[in-house]
Amino acid sequence: MYKKGKRKKMLNSEKIKDTKVFALLMFGGIGSRFGWEKPKQFYKINDRTILEYLVGKFVKMELFDRIVVVSPEKYIEETERELKSFKDSVCIITGGDTREHSVWNGISFLEKFAEDDNIVLIHDGARPLISEEIIIQNIEQAMKFGAVVTAINAIDTVSYSENGSKIEEIIPRSKLFLHQTPQTFKYGLIKSAMERVIDSLYLFSDDASVVLSSGHEVYYVQGSRLNVKVTNQEDVEFVRFLLENENS
Amino acid sequence: MYKKGKRKKMLNSEKIKDTKVFALLMFGGIGSRFGWEKPKQFYKINDRTILEYLVGKFVKMELFDRIVVVSPEKYIEETERELKSFKDSVCIITGGDTREHSVWNGISFLEKFAEDDNIVLIHDGARPLISEEIIIQNIEQAMKFGAVVTAINAIDTVSYSENGSKIEEIIPRSKLFLHQTPQTFKYGLIKSAMERVIDSLYLFSDDASVVLSSGHEVYYVQGSRLNVKVTNQEDVEFVRFLLENENS
Repeated sequence: MYKKGKRKKMLNSEKIKDTKVFALLMFGGIGSRFGWEKPKQFYKINDRTILEYLVGKFVKMELFDRIVVVSPEKYIEETERELKSFKDSVCIITGGDTREHSVWNGISFLEKFAEDDNIVLIHDGARPLISEEIIIQNIEQAMKFGAVVTAINAIDTVSYSENGSKIEEIIPRSKLFLHQTPQTFKYGLIKSAMERVIDSLYLFSDDASVVLSSGHEVYYVQGSRLNVKVTNQEDVEFVRFLLENENS
Repeated sequence: MYKKGKRKKMLNSEKIKDTKVFALLMFGGIGSRFGWEKPKQFYKINDRTILEYLVGKFVKMELFDRIVVVSPEKYIEETERELKSFKDSVCIITGGDTREHSVWNGISFLEKFAEDDNIVLIHDGARPLISEEIIIQNIEQAMKFGAVVTAINAIDTVSYSENGSKIEEIIPRSKLFLHQTPQTFKYGLIKSAMERVIDSLYLFSDDASVVLSSGHEVYYVQGSRLNVKVTNQEDVEFVRFLLENENS
């Protein structure tokens, strides 16, 4: 069912080739910031929805033993319709009330397939421009360190303020990391970290934060400024432009 | 020479109406990240260079007693040619080796025009999408507080790391401010803050950092995600899209 020929060529270590790798693609957000009646994954760019484009990209990479798409309950059927050409490679499951509850649904779903030292790569559905290179880096580094987060340094000057009215401290840009996705973990590690804070998952803004709270180290993988998150109409146009360039 | 009719209508306080306000537009960077033979201000979007577009926008606002354009020495003549239709409203001067040296040239140039409690608004030439609303907020708040910086909160999770290999600490997004421009100050305040660190100006990544180092408080003005800095080809396309929408 899953071809891993390409993966065997691309990943370096023998150990990685023999480890199962799962992808969780998070389309759970209702996209209220998007100013559109439907979640943003159903927005079309060049005749394909963002959903179809991103899932297709993941399927074509041939890196994953199973790709799990997490969708809001209300849009499960529409997601199934959109992804029917990938139905042999993809499982579609229902998300939760917050981002981390949706991730938890994905992690729970994987229980029947994954072993503790298998890899689970978690990626925002709203970041369709992710590169294969960053994904491979995630898998390789997660094998090595157990927990990694894709991140980039800030470009502009950044300051810290408790009360939000005036600068308290300038933070050196080189020491500040803006998190993106993928965020990639050994299955047993992310699962036990989430179980530990299961009643306060809503407090966490990403998966790396949950794992860090369990006391485990989380290493950085170099992200990209082009790996933007689509949160509004302008971002869609930006993504459209980049995809047109990608195809030419 | 300068019409201030509009300014009289838009600014709230009587005190502000009687204070001189200067703009420094910083086109000093050589734009090496831009991957183009010329500085990015000479890139054309819809038949006008970024330089012409931004300077025209500032002239039309009728908010400033004097607009000072800071340009790399090598491009002074080309800048003069591009801006000849604004020659009654704009002074063009030469920049320095770093961003803050260029600002210092502007501050020194203003010595013959500005008094200590006049306002100087400093803006990146690479942020052509700045709104009039944010500019007015800058002027009003700088009158009140002496020193303000335009900033937005981070959207994604942000972490801190000394050595850059792994997360040390998650910093709450609501307490983290990404600086943009304008950054706006009372003239005497920015001048004396820069004089104080004149031999180490190259250490500072923006004007707010210089003023903060002098012990003066710097307050935030709410910026915008759309106030992007043009640093590469993709940003130009993003700006092009937004300008097309702005005009329609």
